[in-house]
Amino acid sequence: MTLLDGKKTSNDLKEEIKASVDLRKTTGKKTPHLAAVLVGTDGASMTYVNSKVKACEYVGFSSTLLDMPADTSEATLLEKIEGLNNDPDIDGYIVQLPLPKHIDEQKVLMAVNPDKDVDGFHPTNVGRMTLDMPCFLPATPYGILELLERYKVETAGKHVVIIGRSHIVGRPMSILMSQKRPAGNATVTVAHSRTSNLKELCLQADIIVAALGIPEFLTGDMVKDGVTIIDVGITRVEDTSKKRGYRLAGDVDFKSVSPKAAFITPVPGGVGPMTIAMLLKNTLLACERRD
Amino acid sequence: MTLLDGKKTSNDLKEEIKASVDLRKTTGKKTPHLAAVLVGTDGASMTYVNSKVKACEYVGFSSTLLDMPADTSEATLLEKIEGLNNDPDIDGYIVQLPLPKHIDEQKVLMAVNPDKDVDGFHPTNVGRMTLDMPCFLPATPYGILELLERYKVETAGKHVVIIGRSHIVGRPMSILMSQKRPAGNATVTVAHSRTSNLKELCLQADIIVAALGIPEFLTGDMVKDGVTIIDVGITRVEDTSKKRGYRLAGDVDFKSVSPKAAFITPVPGGVGPMTIAMLLKNTLLACERRD
Repeated sequence: MTLLDGKKTSNDLKEEIKASVDLRKTTGKKTPHLAAVLVGTDGASMTYVNSKVKACEYVGFSSTLLDMPADTSEATLLEKIEGLNNDPDIDGYIVQLPLPKHIDEQKVLMAVNPDKDVDGFHPTNVGRMTLDMPCFLPATPYGILELLERYKVETAGKHVVIIGRSHIVGRPMSILMSQKRPAGNATVTVAHSRTSNLKELCLQADIIVAALGIPEFLTGDMVKDGVTIIDVGITRVEDTSKKRGYRLAGDVDFKSVSPKAAFITPVPGGVGPMTIAMLLKNTLLACERRD
Repeated sequence: MTLLDGKKTSNDLKEEIKASVDLRKTTGKKTPHLAAVLVGTDGASMTYVNSKVKACEYVGFSSTLLDMPADTSEATLLEKIEGLNNDPDIDGYIVQLPLPKHIDEQKVLMAVNPDKDVDGFHPTNVGRMTLDMPCFLPATPYGILELLERYKVETAGKHVVIIGRSHIVGRPMSILMSQKRPAGNATVTVAHSRTSNLKELCLQADIIVAALGIPEFLTGDMVKDGVTIIDVGITRVEDTSKKRGYRLAGDVDFKSVSPKAAFITPVPGGVGPMTIAMLLKNTLLACERRD
């Protein structure tokens, strides 16, 4: 069993990005600049945004945090977005979700200039992805492709079962892995809450991507020997034996599944760390496109 | 075995659209107006465009055919496109493919205003479809959904195998049938040229959509009893017993498959006739959106 080490791989990626940025600076090219928009003071959102800003600093990007109060009006937010769209120094930006309830999230995401949409959430980017055109790939699926590729997990002609059809993980994964591309060319099945024979399907799978958000859902009796497991889930599960009162659980029961797996991502330290690295990679790409 | 009769269903649809147009006219609303752009004199393209124009007339739409010579420059074509985008009377339009080789097809399709893109080919429409937002669905997949729905073929929780991953049929079908929607909620597998165990997969399928473009590829030994078959293929196969020297063949060997099928589309007269009907439906929708 080989661990697909997202922490190590994301560190490798950050070093590569840092080297590219250093080279840009010594050759007089523009320094990539990522902005993050945060509305309100949600604890998890603040943690995510801060770690993104820190990652930017590490690789040598410029970064801007637009920190707005929770009662910011939709109109004011849209004005800020327009400002970011028109600011020639900003290469890419993200709007940290969720937004406060009085703001129409979809309206805000639609206002982001697709050329600066480094989260890859705008319909134009999603359409370009679906049509296999140049685009910004959403960070989590992009990170999974990168992990599979760097660990040389064979995907062509393999049967991949993706559990979950969310817009940010399940759906894009299913599209990308069945396209002609590295970590692609797989036969892909999308399973979800309405799937009737999930165990039977999973037992056939060469690769399983679990992205349904139910802790330890996938158990050892549901997978075949030699399977590759990508665990996208990350849920806080009460655990009184821990000082903080909880532990982080994936969608996969690591204990029973890992003995049968050829490759498996741990939680934490698997898919999660890859996500920020791919956001940096998209920002570098956005900057390079404007050279 | 029940034939999924595309000819009859498309006629029903046309009557419904005609009734909506009549009602619009008697209530003083705008008459839907579809334009078609044809470059060159390719025989098949002319036939398709003419049948689209005829269908428009039948349901009471206004229609415009922009017929341009084969040596039209890309710049001139893009000017025409811009003109259609800006013409307030045009609700939707299509650019008949293929275009002559000296014209960049992708560049032309990108120039179509997504709000008038009734073919549903623009990345913004494809992205909106992928994200399950309001959009123009591409006509062939839309027609298949409509057929399945009108014949009350159960899809929720069923296993659908889609053979082919093209941008205009296989890919959108796989996305749409796994979404929460009528004729959706299915467990969907996308198979293609790199799939290694196609027969095994097909034998498990409750519904098979054959869209690979190889005449009579799917045979009776590859399907289980009670399967539903959607045959998207239509290829001219040499046949000296026919006066015109060929016959039209689908991707399915109807003779061996139909005895095992619960529902099956014939070729011709199945998926094909639905396509034009859905183009009309999209145009009506485009017009209604501008009311």
